[in-house]
Amino acid sequence: MLSKNELKQIRQLASKKYRSKTGLFVAEGIKVVREFCDSGWKPQVVYSVNELDFVSFTKVDKATLDKITHFSTASSILAIFKLPGEKEYSSDEFSVALDSISDPGNLGTIIRLCDWFGIKNIICSNDTVDCFNPKVVQSTMGSIARVNCYYCDLKAFLSNHTTPIYGACLEGIPYYTQDFDAKGLLVMGSESHGISPKIEKLLNKKITIPPASDGAHPESLNVAVATAIILGEIYRP
Amino acid sequence: MLSKNELKQIRQLASKKYRSKTGLFVAEGIKVVREFCDSGWKPQVVYSVNELDFVSFTKVDKATLDKITHFSTASSILAIFKLPGEKEYSSDEFSVALDSISDPGNLGTIIRLCDWFGIKNIICSNDTVDCFNPKVVQSTMGSIARVNCYYCDLKAFLSNHTTPIYGACLEGIPYYTQDFDAKGLLVMGSESHGISPKIEKLLNKKITIPPASDGAHPESLNVAVATAIILGEIYRP
Repeated sequence: MLSKNELKQIRQLASKKYRSKTGLFVAEGIKVVREFCDSGWKPQVVYSVNELDFVSFTKVDKATLDKITHFSTASSILAIFKLPGEKEYSSDEFSVALDSISDPGNLGTIIRLCDWFGIKNIICSNDTVDCFNPKVVQSTMGSIARVNCYYCDLKAFLSNHTTPIYGACLEGIPYYTQDFDAKGLLVMGSESHGISPKIEKLLNKKITIPPASDGAHPESLNVAVATAIILGEIYRP
Repeated sequence: MLSKNELKQIRQLASKKYRSKTGLFVAEGIKVVREFCDSGWKPQVVYSVNELDFVSFTKVDKATLDKITHFSTASSILAIFKLPGEKEYSSDEFSVALDSISDPGNLGTIIRLCDWFGIKNIICSNDTVDCFNPKVVQSTMGSIARVNCYYCDLKAFLSNHTTPIYGACLEGIPYYTQDFDAKGLLVMGSESHGISPKIEKLLNKKITIPPASDGAHPESLNVAVATAIILGEIYRP
């Protein structure tokens, strides 16, 4: 049985401020929790309705999970992990950078996509949604356990970056005509405004996904979908 | 001022049953409503907080929109349109077929993606989420005004289909090694289970998106993201 105070503390982990203060975050769902454990993360505590064989846990009833879940429908398991310590970005592999991505589902999907293609590092502008937001953690389906997100002043970061910087824009050269450097960086912009002007100035190459025709078509593509098309091209042999 | 009965009727359009009964559906947000109007759809009624110059409307206050919206946050405009009449599928262009897609955001994103690449027809299994679900309409960003979704018994449809049928599977030949027929059909499976066994039997070619390594990686990709990567290949010159 969890105390009122414990229930409250777990619920408060929905906020970034409280996550930073406590150094903790929440993962829900058996697939996600298992991926963290399989990747060597040690949970502080695991609350589960069912028996588990891969980690020690506290058995709770469904009603308790309903009280602590960060979703409209609770899954059968909720675990609390320690936030990883701050790491310095250092990579000589292809990476992705995100400029002001605000939707948790989009960030989660991009993290999962990067994990699929073996991209280990994502640079996020400080105003990108926090990668330990419960909805992001959930939609990565566990990939956040293997992919590092670095939050920084993206403009300052790019100003000092030495490998080629590509950016997805509405105008540019078609993605299938560009040769991508194996140590390069792909910048993707926000859902509403694309790459911001101050970041656009720092791109070495603007890449675009041409629509099928000049006729009626959407103004833009969803950012996760656009990232997928460009990464699908880069990782095509 | 809307009557209690009118408010109730608009809210009931969240359910597919009520949409079928009344032959109506709801579109919210200025971008989405404008796309419908620009594509020649005539709204039955438009409720707007602001003045509009592209369609006649009933002015309402924000509190009224808060009462009729199908979202947690109302936008400044809500319009009601007539559902299109049933059309018979007939296409000699590349099309997409969806097997049991349940997430409205995924379906909306796929519709928007198809619209981007000029794909006009999507065949949906009867258990795929309804394309006039308010969340689907919203996430298409208006593309549903230009793309036709046909709901049918997908197994029966594919059994009678005469052009090559490709399907995205976890095992198959890599997407970048397949030549796609310009009149072909790409089948994408559900978020949880992929293409169902009864549909898989009817595929002519199984296509896959290989992960970067045999090491730890996600079990699968998000379905909209996987569709994007394969369509990005098909529409690559």
